[in-house]
Amino acid sequence: MSDQPLVRLAEIEIDPDCLDEYDALLKEEIEASIAREPGVLMLYALRVRGQPTQRRLVEIYADEDAYRAHLQSEHFLKYKTGTEKMVRSLRLIETDPLLLRSRLGDLT
Amino acid sequence: MSDQPLVRLAEIEIDPDCLDEYDALLKEEIEASIAREPGVLMLYALRVRGQPTQRRLVEIYADEDAYRAHLQSEHFLKYKTGTEKMVRSLRLIETDPLLLRSRLGDLT
Repeated sequence: MSDQPLVRLAEIEIDPDCLDEYDALLKEEIEASIAREPGVLMLYALRVRGQPTQRRLVEIYADEDAYRAHLQSEHFLKYKTGTEKMVRSLRLIETDPLLLRSRLGDLT
Repeated sequence: MSDQPLVRLAEIEIDPDCLDEYDALLKEEIEASIAREPGVLMLYALRVRGQPTQRRLVEIYADEDAYRAHLQSEHFLKYKTGTEKMVRSLRLIETDPLLLRSRLGDLT
């Protein structure tokens, strides 16, 4: 189990009064995660076009241990606490990679 | 417009009788796109855990022109025609990147 990268999608709806504030906290959390956690391989944050309150995240962790460590990190907890009241809904989609190809090469 | 990478998500439901056949055609199309089209930057194919008929794609193209060229490519048209009867539903989600960070570096 533990040497498979973990790929997760998140579908998030934000309070329309907090969009800029939410995005700032999310970006800070992503930058800190990539800078400080070797097991966080990819964090992509996307705004859904035409639906200003909708965000999508693509998250890749080296393995389950890396993901669990991420959940305990200071920067993640800051994001989670700081955005708690801004998030109207959160749906996490666990996936099994079928094929991951990128011009940058393979992640693992 | 044209120097922004284009990031799209696709939500696909497959006929349960055609899962292996569909996945084989999708993988072939992804490998060919990355091998032959410099403007196709990333194609990630994911199976949704616990929902065997559900696929998610993360697609990144260098720009709108690269995306339009991809739609005309022989390998894409082969995939599109070959899977037409296997796809029960297809939802495309256009996005505006907020922040794209990966351990592999930046895509563009």
